[in-house]
Amino acid sequence: MTASADQSTGLDAVLSRIDADLPQALDRLMELLRIPSISTDPAYAADCARAAEWLAADLRGLGFDAASRPTPGHPMVVGHGGAGDKHLLFYGHYDVQPVDPLSLWHRDPFDPAIEETPKGRVIRARGSADDKGQLMTFIEACRAWKAVHGTLPARLTIFLEGEEESGSPSLIPFMRENAAELTSDIALICDTGMYEDDIPAITTMLRGLCKTEFTLRAADRDLHSGSYGGLARNPIHVLTRILANLHDDHGRVQVPGFYDDVAELPDELRAQWQALAFDHAKFLGDVGLSVPAGEDDRTPLEKIWSRPTAEVNGIWGGYTGAGFKTVLPSEANAKVSFRLVSAQDPEKIIPAFRAWAEAQLPPDCEIIWHDAVEGSPASVMSIANPAFEAARQALTDEWGRPAAFVGAGGSIPIAGYFKSVLGMDAMLIGFGRDDDQIHSPNEKYDLESFHKGIRSWARVLARLA
Amino acid sequence: MTASADQSTGLDAVLSRIDADLPQALDRLMELLRIPSISTDPAYAADCARAAEWLAADLRGLGFDAASRPTPGHPMVVGHGGAGDKHLLFYGHYDVQPVDPLSLWHRDPFDPAIEETPKGRVIRARGSADDKGQLMTFIEACRAWKAVHGTLPARLTIFLEGEEESGSPSLIPFMRENAAELTSDIALICDTGMYEDDIPAITTMLRGLCKTEFTLRAADRDLHSGSYGGLARNPIHVLTRILANLHDDHGRVQVPGFYDDVAELPDELRAQWQALAFDHAKFLGDVGLSVPAGEDDRTPLEKIWSRPTAEVNGIWGGYTGAGFKTVLPSEANAKVSFRLVSAQDPEKIIPAFRAWAEAQLPPDCEIIWHDAVEGSPASVMSIANPAFEAARQALTDEWGRPAAFVGAGGSIPIAGYFKSVLGMDAMLIGFGRDDDQIHSPNEKYDLESFHKGIRSWARVLARLA
Repeated sequence: MTASADQSTGLDAVLSRIDADLPQALDRLMELLRIPSISTDPAYAADCARAAEWLAADLRGLGFDAASRPTPGHPMVVGHGGAGDKHLLFYGHYDVQPVDPLSLWHRDPFDPAIEETPKGRVIRARGSADDKGQLMTFIEACRAWKAVHGTLPARLTIFLEGEEESGSPSLIPFMRENAAELTSDIALICDTGMYEDDIPAITTMLRGLCKTEFTLRAADRDLHSGSYGGLARNPIHVLTRILANLHDDHGRVQVPGFYDDVAELPDELRAQWQALAFDHAKFLGDVGLSVPAGEDDRTPLEKIWSRPTAEVNGIWGGYTGAGFKTVLPSEANAKVSFRLVSAQDPEKIIPAFRAWAEAQLPPDCEIIWHDAVEGSPASVMSIANPAFEAARQALTDEWGRPAAFVGAGGSIPIAGYFKSVLGMDAMLIGFGRDDDQIHSPNEKYDLESFHKGIRSWARVLARLA
Repeated sequence: MTASADQSTGLDAVLSRIDADLPQALDRLMELLRIPSISTDPAYAADCARAAEWLAADLRGLGFDAASRPTPGHPMVVGHGGAGDKHLLFYGHYDVQPVDPLSLWHRDPFDPAIEETPKGRVIRARGSADDKGQLMTFIEACRAWKAVHGTLPARLTIFLEGEEESGSPSLIPFMRENAAELTSDIALICDTGMYEDDIPAITTMLRGLCKTEFTLRAADRDLHSGSYGGLARNPIHVLTRILANLHDDHGRVQVPGFYDDVAELPDELRAQWQALAFDHAKFLGDVGLSVPAGEDDRTPLEKIWSRPTAEVNGIWGGYTGAGFKTVLPSEANAKVSFRLVSAQDPEKIIPAFRAWAEAQLPPDCEIIWHDAVEGSPASVMSIANPAFEAARQALTDEWGRPAAFVGAGGSIPIAGYFKSVLGMDAMLIGFGRDDDQIHSPNEKYDLESFHKGIRSWARVLARLA
């Protein structure tokens, strides 16, 4: 395979260049990390704009036709460069989470530093892992490629958002308005993690989410439990009886039709997941638990990656302050959410839950639903797309351990948007680790994640180009 | 029956005197109502002392050896007077509830006035019904008796408290320290209501109360429902399942042994209660309900007067603010209380509940109990004491409708204290009405309650003396 050998030779030079250039790549990342681009706080709007400008300028230095482009919120950075039959889009976000409580940081979150830790060297700063460090792995891979080959590895579009940590209000309108220039063969997203410290991962399943909040009402005022207790309906009792029925004794959700659109895991993924030998005892032990809850006929990985859930996220009613008040309240409240998989549709799940709950109401009770039916379905990536197997080989080459196709229990809406708005598949590859403390004080990104992340993208680009 | 006829003749004169003296009696009550003796607020301590002095002085004017006596809190008024074989104690309280929100009063709560209403004339002021108007019915009856006969009707001890609305912290110590002079044949308490507007009542059963608050813990931190949902234990689910089991489908409390010490209603009371033809549709309709809840094989009156209850008074866990947070919380909380009847013992009920709840805990969960076991048992008056039948006859004579022996769902701890501290029976007779708005803005006491209340006490004293 001459072509492969040529490519491999070219790749080796790129990887060597990456190794040699690491100190400079770190300097560039540090510069970006010093910009406090907190998107949720209007006080940092100018910093967000500055981060966008910094990135656009950096991309222009690599030969991209790049600009920071205005939105009603923070700017989008879009850069186009390279040439070839394959058009690859890369997505990341330059905005970061707020830093409070600042007192829990052991250094200024926007004064990044390399620190020695028992597990190796880390880059300590807000945004180091989420997502500036991750997005720079891709840009640095492009830089090395350009330095070695004089060109970018493929026709590339870089698309960087500044509102990911604040709900992405401008994202879908911007995608729609600029669909022609953004639509590519595949979207590469670097905002996820490794499966384990030394096992790289491609996330191929993301659960969807829908939710509802309600008030269950009985009497038209709070009642004294002495005068009325034993005769008047207590809405807390009614609520607990309804919610207690949400799961059967085997952990299965009891809402009729809930599992209708849930597909079983493909045999190929099931075999791969079994091979991962997920250490659920450690996973649970880290948060003070030991015994898996939920559906008792499912494996722990299925439970968090490929099975839907119903969870009460909040409950309140009656007197909840200090001391005691012997009240029979007039109402009780709950917030309930559902993690969705496969083809489960929020437009069917929420109405089914509501009908199921209302069917259990005793006399004199009513439920007031507080929100519109909305939510996002699951994202299931098409691993039949050969790009997935190519990327898996590339990651396996870099890390020396077979890369895993994994699921993620949470939602990363951007993956779904590429599909629903632009009709593109998305591939999520990232190098974050469980202990990166994203969204928390003392966020860090391992130097190994950064270095081998850059090398990983160079290998992926070599195979995809 | 010559004695009875004599007594009756003497009584008629007393009743006439009460009628003639009503304007002056009202003037005296108004004077007492003008003193803002709010016991919970230290700013009114001097006013509480002034109310106590006013009452002691008034009693001295009737020939009582009376004084306002210091306590660590507000003073107690104790007066002894009269002579005879029968020693009767009368209890009331001169302190009143706070008045906020003041904006909801249609007049100054401490500027009392007689107002015309569609249902008759009322005395409008804070404390008019609870309890200054009620306690003055007894004192005015004594005054009329003294005016007609030159003596008090029996050996009387008047015992007036100034901390009833703030938890009575000085009461039990004062009773213990002054047991010899307070112990009497029976305690008469005027702090309850009529059964209906024209049906007087003697309260012979008061439910007891015990309560417990707890936290149910699972993971050692709040978890993200995306990462952990479906695998990690959700303590809200565990809590709702436990609390949903608190009652079976027939409304019976499921805590083992809960009903062990619950006596069935005596046939005599059951017959009386049936005769009351309690209008539960109106009782529930007034608060927006229509269908009785609770034990489905019990009558509505039994449910609120003579049956025990278990009620969740407060529940909270997870995210309860605006919007949504897809959290699996580390804990969930509840406040649960029990209304007790017959010989139910808080020292048995609370531990039984705790053991029952803990037996339902799944792995990785624990319950932290936040309070000591305490509470008060039910008070069941000994209606075999002939004073009860005598008082019932007296009330029936005055109101022209048979007086009822009734229960009260709430607790009036003083009744139990007379029994437990001083070994005395207590008899609760009062003339309050359901719409008196005690503890609320625009408290009132019907002029009829005051006038016929005084006459009622004269009749009761005539029969008991």
